[in-house]
Amino acid sequence: MIDELSALKSIEERFHRASKGVELGIGDDAAAVKFHSGNLVLSTTDTQVEDVHFVKSQITPQQLARKAVAVSVSDVGAMGGVPRFILASVGFSRSEDKEFLDKLITGFINSEQEFGVDLIGGNLSSSEKLFIDITVLGEVESELMVKRSGANPGDSVYVSGTLGDSALGLKMLLNDQIRNKNEILIQKHLHPLPRLALGRELALKKIATSMIDISDGLLLDLERVTVNKGSGAKIELSKIPTSKEYDECIDQFTDNSYELAISGGEDYELLFTSPEERSEDIRKISRDLNIKITEIGKVTRDSNIDLINIDGKITTNKQRGFVHFNN
Amino acid sequence: MIDELSALKSIEERFHRASKGVELGIGDDAAAVKFHSGNLVLSTTDTQVEDVHFVKSQITPQQLARKAVAVSVSDVGAMGGVPRFILASVGFSRSEDKEFLDKLITGFINSEQEFGVDLIGGNLSSSEKLFIDITVLGEVESELMVKRSGANPGDSVYVSGTLGDSALGLKMLLNDQIRNKNEILIQKHLHPLPRLALGRELALKKIATSMIDISDGLLLDLERVTVNKGSGAKIELSKIPTSKEYDECIDQFTDNSYELAISGGEDYELLFTSPEERSEDIRKISRDLNIKITEIGKVTRDSNIDLINIDGKITTNKQRGFVHFNN
Repeated sequence: MIDELSALKSIEERFHRASKGVELGIGDDAAAVKFHSGNLVLSTTDTQVEDVHFVKSQITPQQLARKAVAVSVSDVGAMGGVPRFILASVGFSRSEDKEFLDKLITGFINSEQEFGVDLIGGNLSSSEKLFIDITVLGEVESELMVKRSGANPGDSVYVSGTLGDSALGLKMLLNDQIRNKNEILIQKHLHPLPRLALGRELALKKIATSMIDISDGLLLDLERVTVNKGSGAKIELSKIPTSKEYDECIDQFTDNSYELAISGGEDYELLFTSPEERSEDIRKISRDLNIKITEIGKVTRDSNIDLINIDGKITTNKQRGFVHFNN
Repeated sequence: MIDELSALKSIEERFHRASKGVELGIGDDAAAVKFHSGNLVLSTTDTQVEDVHFVKSQITPQQLARKAVAVSVSDVGAMGGVPRFILASVGFSRSEDKEFLDKLITGFINSEQEFGVDLIGGNLSSSEKLFIDITVLGEVESELMVKRSGANPGDSVYVSGTLGDSALGLKMLLNDQIRNKNEILIQKHLHPLPRLALGRELALKKIATSMIDISDGLLLDLERVTVNKGSGAKIELSKIPTSKEYDECIDQFTDNSYELAISGGEDYELLFTSPEERSEDIRKISRDLNIKITEIGKVTRDSNIDLINIDGKITTNKQRGFVHFNN
């Protein structure tokens, strides 16, 4: 069990330092920060709940803290913005101790460096199950912000990286029957890499007409970037990028080798749309940042998501008009 | 049990509307908002966890949502700032249903109006116990911000309203033995009134040298406003303002009639310090806003909190060097 007083002391000691833009950090009624004049302030919040989003025995406190931050800053990156500050609300259960807290703090400090953010505040409570709620504050120039809603019929649909690895890694993590667990896939689940530099670059060069980070699987998130305009998309399954590890291991779990790549979730890759004439710019960014970017289809005028199989057969997913509370 | 898809639909429908400063509200990866140029952005987060901060049978969903917002905006008020936007992270247990969600949303909408804020985002998860985590974003002019750390020896110590009512109300709420429950005290607990207008006025007129909202009891929060400078305070117990209802009911619970007034918590009254020469300005604000403001003692040069009893006896509370994670 964690004693609040000593927990707060640890936090105060380990986080208190001068940082750019932080007028007032941890320790007052509220934190006070500065953003660049004229910029929009981006905010988003995401929660990791024990036994809902993670199993405590399968992830270290450092990994957990880092992942909670990673998936939240990912949302700011998907707007073309820059994450700046985080607030962490943590509910500790009776089974967490001082050592756990110290490791959690280490995870937060590591992610401050990795993602260029400062932890400026938060809250500690008791809770039956451990939870971590991260709010990220970021910023973006008004004219550069990339919404979910800007896709136009005819735009190409792109994704970064490879899809399905995280979902497959999770299956391996949770299934004791699997003998040859693939560590690369498991790492993709425990240690996701938000595409901050890519999101920013696509915004700075005004390449993306719409963008989202894939957190609930390609198909669902594809709906989200097209649903606002009544448009849809035609996706070629054969173009969906998967990793060597995914290709090697997927057969153990499902007969449909695309299943986890199109609906697995937690990829945190960027899904974006862009006019065809920007394809050369996208190839350049891909080379410069050394990030694989793949065109997987086109935005269409009707409101269906059509999946074209290798044999040319089309499966249509009706739009479900999905809305996201936020972020 | 709440179905996420329909929950999100309800939220989208009930919150989506144009609002000042909100460039992009619920429904994208992150919300995008504007603050007044040059202002500091204030942020703070606070969590209400079932069976830790509230018992579900004792509070309506509307009251719960409102209270979660009220205690969070209170922190922004205590900086002299203006709350503008909120993000709500809610963890629903299996026992919440659509009706509960609708009432919770009603509570959020009511508090948007009451506190002048817009709900711009949030997150829904499952959870074993219900929790609500509210992040508030507000703003304050850099030169007007009131920190906890500005108290000077010789300053007078003031509190708004009356203290101990909420803690006494909570005792009544939880104790089935009490026959004559006092509804006014219970309301003080379920429906706290953050002193936003007062905090703002004290900042605008540069009256307060330090300020905090009393959430953990007068004594603890008194430490927080003096601890940074090695100063302390001398408080006259007889001056501590209590309500008629408190005075009538407190004897049922304790022999020390000041106990809950000095350490009960959840008052959300403002505790602030100010040079003696501003006392007339404070009386004027008290009249103008119709809020009782009471001088209860002085800031001293040594680092003790001295409580002067009615018979002149002094009890000394050693500073515990308490730090607050934030907010």
